[in-house]
Amino acid sequence: MALIVQKFGGTSVGNIERIQAVADRVLATRAAGHDVVVVVSAMSGETDRLLKLAREIDSQPHPRELDTLLSTGEQVTIALLAMALHRKGQAAVSLTGSQVPIETDSAHNKARIERIDGTRLRSALAAGQVVIVAGFQGINPHGDITTLGRGGSDTTAVALAAALQADECAIYTDVDGIYTTDPRVESKARRLDRITYEEMLEMASLGAKVLQTRSVEFAMNYRVPVRVLSSFANGPGTLVTSEENCMEAPRVSGIAFSRNEAKITVVAVPDRPGIASAILGPISAANINVDVILQNISEDGKTDFTFTVERNDFERAMGILRDVAHELGAEDVRGDTGIVKVSAVGVGMRSHAGIAASMFAALAQENINIQMISTSEIKISVVIAEKYLELAVRALHGAFGLEKAAS
Amino acid sequence: MALIVQKFGGTSVGNIERIQAVADRVLATRAAGHDVVVVVSAMSGETDRLLKLAREIDSQPHPRELDTLLSTGEQVTIALLAMALHRKGQAAVSLTGSQVPIETDSAHNKARIERIDGTRLRSALAAGQVVIVAGFQGINPHGDITTLGRGGSDTTAVALAAALQADECAIYTDVDGIYTTDPRVESKARRLDRITYEEMLEMASLGAKVLQTRSVEFAMNYRVPVRVLSSFANGPGTLVTSEENCMEAPRVSGIAFSRNEAKITVVAVPDRPGIASAILGPISAANINVDVILQNISEDGKTDFTFTVERNDFERAMGILRDVAHELGAEDVRGDTGIVKVSAVGVGMRSHAGIAASMFAALAQENINIQMISTSEIKISVVIAEKYLELAVRALHGAFGLEKAAS
Repeated sequence: MALIVQKFGGTSVGNIERIQAVADRVLATRAAGHDVVVVVSAMSGETDRLLKLAREIDSQPHPRELDTLLSTGEQVTIALLAMALHRKGQAAVSLTGSQVPIETDSAHNKARIERIDGTRLRSALAAGQVVIVAGFQGINPHGDITTLGRGGSDTTAVALAAALQADECAIYTDVDGIYTTDPRVESKARRLDRITYEEMLEMASLGAKVLQTRSVEFAMNYRVPVRVLSSFANGPGTLVTSEENCMEAPRVSGIAFSRNEAKITVVAVPDRPGIASAILGPISAANINVDVILQNISEDGKTDFTFTVERNDFERAMGILRDVAHELGAEDVRGDTGIVKVSAVGVGMRSHAGIAASMFAALAQENINIQMISTSEIKISVVIAEKYLELAVRALHGAFGLEKAAS
Repeated sequence: MALIVQKFGGTSVGNIERIQAVADRVLATRAAGHDVVVVVSAMSGETDRLLKLAREIDSQPHPRELDTLLSTGEQVTIALLAMALHRKGQAAVSLTGSQVPIETDSAHNKARIERIDGTRLRSALAAGQVVIVAGFQGINPHGDITTLGRGGSDTTAVALAAALQADECAIYTDVDGIYTTDPRVESKARRLDRITYEEMLEMASLGAKVLQTRSVEFAMNYRVPVRVLSSFANGPGTLVTSEENCMEAPRVSGIAFSRNEAKITVVAVPDRPGIASAILGPISAANINVDVILQNISEDGKTDFTFTVERNDFERAMGILRDVAHELGAEDVRGDTGIVKVSAVGVGMRSHAGIAASMFAALAQENINIQMISTSEIKISVVIAEKYLELAVRALHGAFGLEKAAS
């Protein structure tokens, strides 16, 4: 007998029929002899409906009151799921974030979980009840309702699994696991049986939106085994776990990519100490994240300084830089939104040499020009023209043999 | 400077525009120098929407979970109203039933308020905040969310006013006060400046649906001055208060009526001790309320036994009685849904003789046949054929001079 935390997102509880299906899945887990804690999100569309009401009043709604408003979305779902389980003969009890309690800091709209008191949960489980917890929400030291920010239900599930020392945290989504790359781009993409926390973090931050980055960090810190599975089909999914549990890590586990990229070049800026900070300081002050950075070799005391930002921050960043470039005596500021980032991710890179060389060779063979390169211990990213995205992903997927299961 | 509790029902907060109007009304009260606690219901339609979701799962939803579900309706409104006040520059804080806390018993779906801790409310008021409380909900000793049943927001408002020793509890509705009778029936109906708790209770139980009966009982027990006013117009409304504050009580304050009546006669039942209990016992066991009761004088050891029930209980009551009547050896059971009850209400009756005589004379003059009579200390009711309803109401309104302000 194990203790399983199961999390179902908004699409999985999007209507009464789907809530009934979730109840059946919980019953099946109970029938297999396990204790179950369920975490649910708001029914799909509900959070947007509530946000729309708030924004009719104030484009920047009062943060405390916004949390009080939005938290009702999950509260509706927990009550409906508990009713469905009762109707099917299974004792169940719903708990809001404040009833658990899930204690957070006071950063409304993006609170961090500080402590979970598992007493009430454990006694409910001991009494044979399925416990249904509202995701995404908690309570601060003043008794105010807080929310963890979008996608926070994943974090709630992982944090509960950590607090209860659950055997597994199962995240049900609309995909049946983590793939070697996006199957819509490369039909040979293959579901991974296992992936390490570190790889999952890189994949998530690179645009594979299956798991919230913060929930993966949490799982990694507390060593919670997380399984990503489909709400709508059966299958083993993908287990996200520590490296020790991924016995034969392949060199590369997956090819991730992001279209949400734009490139900015400050042309022929005088090359002197402090130039990078003079350019990037105002960008960072405007809360714009900079990703890949490249500074060309200086010629005649002038250099080109290039970096990437998220595409929806592009116009803002260009506006800021036109002023900055003028002050710095740069010749021009050029922008390009026609670029993407493609990355090879794998903890096996640490112990295998030559991954970068293989990657560049595969791209060269397809005549794909690499504009920028960025590496980390378990990831190599290249910035290329957007038109080459599919070609590059397929070339790399093939070059690292990802269509075949790891040997 | 006074402390005013203001309660706004579902229609008054039915959309964002109306919530803004409520915010303006609160601001005006603040501008007049008063402290304000606001109690709001769910936006109109919201409770029905949630109930419909629950009933798609279970026609008899689990009571604890139903309360968790329904309480979200008011939670949405308090957050939106608090945002609107903040937007208009007024400090405000929303509190759910559990945040106040409003402590109730554990009777889910029809809980009773047991205690209100006013500490948090008082400190928020002292800090210059408007406090917005979710109506209709509370928390039981186990920390479970409870609801007070439909219309419970009135009770929340009155209970808060009692706990905080507020100077007045203002109930904003879609009418501008309590009238001498329904203006749709008698255009000469007049708004009353004052009415006693006792009269209001009789009016409410007779079908004048402006205030929940339980909230009036609560106000009477704790001597809370309640003012009924319109959300959509300005005006003094009607003050519901104790008899001492209604200096010159008129003999009759109003004419109430109810169409929700049906009459049942058990014909020629053997007249022996215990017959009333034999007939009414099974009715009461089926949770059907019996109102006016009439037992004819016995002839030949047989009697007719007549009583009224609410019209929507009529079919059920008839079904039960057909069996009972057979066992008791009665000749027949006859039903009539074409009747109504018309009542004259007034605390002045206590000290004025002859009210009943005036009432019967006024009806006789219009040739209206009285089928049953029921009296209490401050009320005389008659059961008549439904077709005479308007005629009877107008005749009595005129006979007691209600079109003129009390002298």
